Amino acid sequence: MSDLYPAERLARAAEAAQAAGLAALLLTPGPELRYLTGYDAHLSERLTCLVVPAMSEPFLIVPRLEQPAAVASPASRMGLEITGWDETDDPYALLAGRLGLAGGGPRAVGVADRMWALMVLRLRDALPGTGQVLAGPVLTGMRVRKSAAEVDALRAAGAAIDRVHQRVPGWLRPGRTEREVAADISGAIVAEGHARTDFAIVASGPNAASPHHEPSDRMLAPGDAVVVDIGGTMPSGYCSDCTRTYAIGSPPPEFAAYYEVLARAQDAACAAVRPGVPAEAVDAAARDPITAAGYGRYFIHRTGHGIGLETHEDPYLVAGNSEPLAPGMAFSVEPGIYPGPHGARIEDIVVCTDGGCDRLNNVTRDLVVVEG
Amino acid sequence: MSDLYPAERLARAAEAAQAAGLAALLLTPGPELRYLTGYDAHLSERLTCLVVPAMSEPFLIVPRLEQPAAVASPASRMGLEITGWDETDDPYALLAGRLGLAGGGPRAVGVADRMWALMVLRLRDALPGTGQVLAGPVLTGMRVRKSAAEVDALRAAGAAIDRVHQRVPGWLRPGRTEREVAADISGAIVAEGHARTDFAIVASGPNAASPHHEPSDRMLAPGDAVVVDIGGTMPSGYCSDCTRTYAIGSPPPEFAAYYEVLARAQDAACAAVRPGVPAEAVDAAARDPITAAGYGRYFIHRTGHGIGLETHEDPYLVAGNSEPLAPGMAFSVEPGIYPGPHGARIEDIVVCTDGGCDRLNNVTRDLVVVEG
Repeated sequence: MSDLYPAERLARAAEAAQAAGLAALLLTPGPELRYLTGYDAHLSERLTCLVVPAMSEPFLIVPRLEQPAAVASPASRMGLEITGWDETDDPYALLAGRLGLAGGGPRAVGVADRMWALMVLRLRDALPGTGQVLAGPVLTGMRVRKSAAEVDALRAAGAAIDRVHQRVPGWLRPGRTEREVAADISGAIVAEGHARTDFAIVASGPNAASPHHEPSDRMLAPGDAVVVDIGGTMPSGYCSDCTRTYAIGSPPPEFAAYYEVLARAQDAACAAVRPGVPAEAVDAAARDPITAAGYGRYFIHRTGHGIGLETHEDPYLVAGNSEPLAPGMAFSVEPGIYPGPHGARIEDIVVCTDGGCDRLNNVTRDLVVVEG
Repeated sequence: MSDLYPAERLARAAEAAQAAGLAALLLTPGPELRYLTGYDAHLSERLTCLVVPAMSEPFLIVPRLEQPAAVASPASRMGLEITGWDETDDPYALLAGRLGLAGGGPRAVGVADRMWALMVLRLRDALPGTGQVLAGPVLTGMRVRKSAAEVDALRAAGAAIDRVHQRVPGWLRPGRTEREVAADISGAIVAEGHARTDFAIVASGPNAASPHHEPSDRMLAPGDAVVVDIGGTMPSGYCSDCTRTYAIGSPPPEFAAYYEVLARAQDAACAAVRPGVPAEAVDAAARDPITAAGYGRYFIHRTGHGIGLETHEDPYLVAGNSEPLAPGMAFSVEPGIYPGPHGARIEDIVVCTDGGCDRLNNVTRDLVVVEG
């Protein structure tokens, strides 16, 4: 835990707030709060908020009934002051009073990217005259390059989800529904070491052409291609995300043709990953061979997203993002081709290393054909 | 589905927006969007937003890759216009242009209570000069009184979580950890019919004094009281939430004394539920006998919260909430006593009926003692 959530991050976050011209960062339960303290705080309508002032000591405000959990968390081991509020208190007034922005200095605060509007608007009212910007961009410089401990955590997540994919062929049987397969997968995600299942997309036959299809009561049938995109959160807080496409019996001939194009494109994109390369160049490396083969208009999403304490975070591999890759950046490489009435996607999480690219998912990318 | 998510709600929401002086409601994935359309939309950093203008037709903006799922959802069956945006589009500009607030009329919008700051602040920037208020209070008048179909959905959720509680004694064995028991419970929540597990609090021995304790590696031991507070979301979208306290072998004598007080207080609070009674009166009905018995300072949270598509929603049973109860309101009644080094809580979901109170959890509230 100490390695994964080092205590010095709080001081670095205060410096980042100051550099951004902000009086403080206000972080409700979510990835920023966990990144800075290791505290996996309960998200609810009751205000829990880590306050990181640019110029004074950070403090944590928690509902009284969460206080024992906060005190038992790593946040407490960092020597953070923890203040509880009672059910009939106004925690927004408490926070505003404790922060004390009445004097001079910057009059804007950064709020957690996933803070609920409920809190955003109440904080706006409790801190009149104080601007609000997103805290995420202030902290992304710290978060986007993973430490060795974070890469280890992502590697463990990748290995866990790979083990689930190794079991998937056994659950793909004609006559079973997508929902039944998704339930098996959800159970296995936890059984293989995750703390929770985040998603289990099982998109079969025509549904495979819908990238974010919700598992339905459609029964698997011979000739189906099945896109299986699954992920969870490990006890460490770090996430997995891996897609493989399976075939039940013989897939349609045109499917086999573009699956081969897709696999080459995914390889080409991974090969393009190295320090200094713009994020959008990896998107182009995946897109170009798909476009050249005539499937460009069927690749309807970006090539990838960063991953860490969030399944989707910086950096995004998308046209227009010229941010150069750097060692420690971790992200998905997941081109897809969805011509209908079928589709395919291949996704690995990779880490940019000094020398190139380290794949954290290593289950076979060859089309696995199960008995039809 | 038609009963649970009737199409006329969209028109009623527009009327509510107009009555509140708002130009529109902007609803990202969450309970309000699902309540109005039945669409269980995927929540991510990509903008999905139901726009309900006060004076024109509602429309739904979705990322291109979510479009097939949106079209397959009940939202589409309502004849809602669904507009997809591509990865390199600016969906906030698209929304602002389509909404067209340039003319006269109200210049404030309601945003979903759980909308991420990411979207709140981008919408603020995309709609300059337009105020933002919470959409929740605008819609709570519709949502707080459940329809017969919603009560049926909550009853099914209550029955499912009751079946899990009936299995809990079999998992409470000395030497097992809280985490192991919580994993068994999480699996059973899904096996008994929920779509997902939302929480599984297993707080044993001294941890039972922490109302929102996270399951730990503490081993259960003879003499422990164990607070088990569990819930999930059904495929219908409706939530369960039920707490029972168990004992492993003989609990401490002082525990037995206050458990009896607690059970009486919980009964008294349920008996106080009927139309016209202020929400805070139910809190008082639970709190008074606990205070009279000398345990008032150990009851450190409100008595209950509304439940429906959210585990916590209006009405809240807390001092200061004088809102009168009305038939169809559904909420928890869950007093607790936490003197340490042990504690107890009893929680049922109840519905206010014309004549009083209908309990949706009916597993025994007597202290269940398992072999120590």
